[in-house]
Amino acid sequence: MTDDSARDFAFLTALAADAAAAALPHFRVGIAADNKAGPGAYDPVTEGDRATEAAIRARIEAAFPDDAIIGEEFGTARAGARHTWIVDPIDGTRAFLAGLPLWGTLVGLVEDDRAVLGMMSQPFTGEMFLGDGGRAEWRRGGAVLPLAARSGRRLGEALMMSTSPHLFAGADAAVFARMVGAVRDIRYGGDCYAYCMLAAGQVDLVVECGLKTYDIAALVPIIEGAGGVVTTWDGRPAKDGGRIVAAGSAALHAEALALLNA
Amino acid sequence: MTDDSARDFAFLTALAADAAAAALPHFRVGIAADNKAGPGAYDPVTEGDRATEAAIRARIEAAFPDDAIIGEEFGTARAGARHTWIVDPIDGTRAFLAGLPLWGTLVGLVEDDRAVLGMMSQPFTGEMFLGDGGRAEWRRGGAVLPLAARSGRRLGEALMMSTSPHLFAGADAAVFARMVGAVRDIRYGGDCYAYCMLAAGQVDLVVECGLKTYDIAALVPIIEGAGGVVTTWDGRPAKDGGRIVAAGSAALHAEALALLNA
Repeated sequence: MTDDSARDFAFLTALAADAAAAALPHFRVGIAADNKAGPGAYDPVTEGDRATEAAIRARIEAAFPDDAIIGEEFGTARAGARHTWIVDPIDGTRAFLAGLPLWGTLVGLVEDDRAVLGMMSQPFTGEMFLGDGGRAEWRRGGAVLPLAARSGRRLGEALMMSTSPHLFAGADAAVFARMVGAVRDIRYGGDCYAYCMLAAGQVDLVVECGLKTYDIAALVPIIEGAGGVVTTWDGRPAKDGGRIVAAGSAALHAEALALLNA
Repeated sequence: MTDDSARDFAFLTALAADAAAAALPHFRVGIAADNKAGPGAYDPVTEGDRATEAAIRARIEAAFPDDAIIGEEFGTARAGARHTWIVDPIDGTRAFLAGLPLWGTLVGLVEDDRAVLGMMSQPFTGEMFLGDGGRAEWRRGGAVLPLAARSGRRLGEALMMSTSPHLFAGADAAVFARMVGAVRDIRYGGDCYAYCMLAAGQVDLVVECGLKTYDIAALVPIIEGAGGVVTTWDGRPAKDGGRIVAAGSAALHAEALALLNA
């Protein structure tokens, strides 16, 4: 390390501030109405993604120059290091484009192949969700509250979320339809925010497919720190992405896994 | 009138403050974690709905005692008055339950059978959307910005929103699937927030069915004030609810209407 930084919640909070400053100017340019560029000249998602990831990488590289970084925009640096930071500068591109405050900046830390630290920052609402696998916190302004997933609900009582039914194709679509038929309610839209609401005890299940490592690695320590369980549909670690199922409790996760593989 | 109040944006802003104070204590009780009631003893949506509508009705009745009120929770008072206030204390019940800041308090004013004034307030983000059919505004903290819907996009370029594909049944489901196939992208989840993002120029189309008057009457003057167009699928005024289509421009609305009725 080159300074007093540690790989902890305080460091993630500093990253979130950098990310907010880089991303927010590109959010809702429709309302700001001062976009003088011609049509096609300005792509808010691309610009916001690049500026945000660049800011995050700069702070990580200054504090931990030997750590690896995997980012959605700028790829992999120093692959094979013991510590790898996994960055999605704007997770939830569709939400960002639609003006909905459900996108987030995701930063996760993998140590010896385990996801050990994670942050989701939503700068428009001013919220941060942090976790280290053992505990998880919600922060906003000066407030800090523990995150605790909801337990005790069976599959038939569960509120499930997923980004969109249209993301499931072929056999996965049939499996997802079976899940929709089994739960009490399904709510679409949410991206990373859905997993955070699971950690907050508002949502019981999240089921998705086609995730990349930078879509999920940061969320694993938040979900697990809040007492939830997240794996692939075949029960393997979630941090590398793929088809993902998160549940508020081990019992509900087992029920979901059984139906996903029925 | 019993005081200096007028039926204007300032009055709506006062209603929004009352509504926020009544609704927010019931939002995300999972995070607050101080709900001492046993399971089943406390229903945050029902409690939040009733407290919020009661607060809004009290202020309206104090200022305009002869005006009619239609509310989702407490029904109709003084039907037949020239002015009717239409209140949905928490529009977007599923969003509210899932912890997503996309629900809103809706208050609309109908005068001589026309929707002439409307407010959507989202107290967690601190946003208000106001319209009188001629202009529309977004307010947050001290900021006030004009709302302007986006024009120039054809159907094939449109970003469409709808609360859930599962709300469409029978022939409506087939029509909705045709719309999904025709637009560039569909985003689910949003409730009243989707119409406000249309007014803000972020979203081009909103297509829904089964709306009640209190789900849409408040949004009509916001959408129209921002330059958008909103009607039923058969082109009639939207304020009474039913199957609704909102578009950022008259040209896009005409394209959508043609496909909805093809």
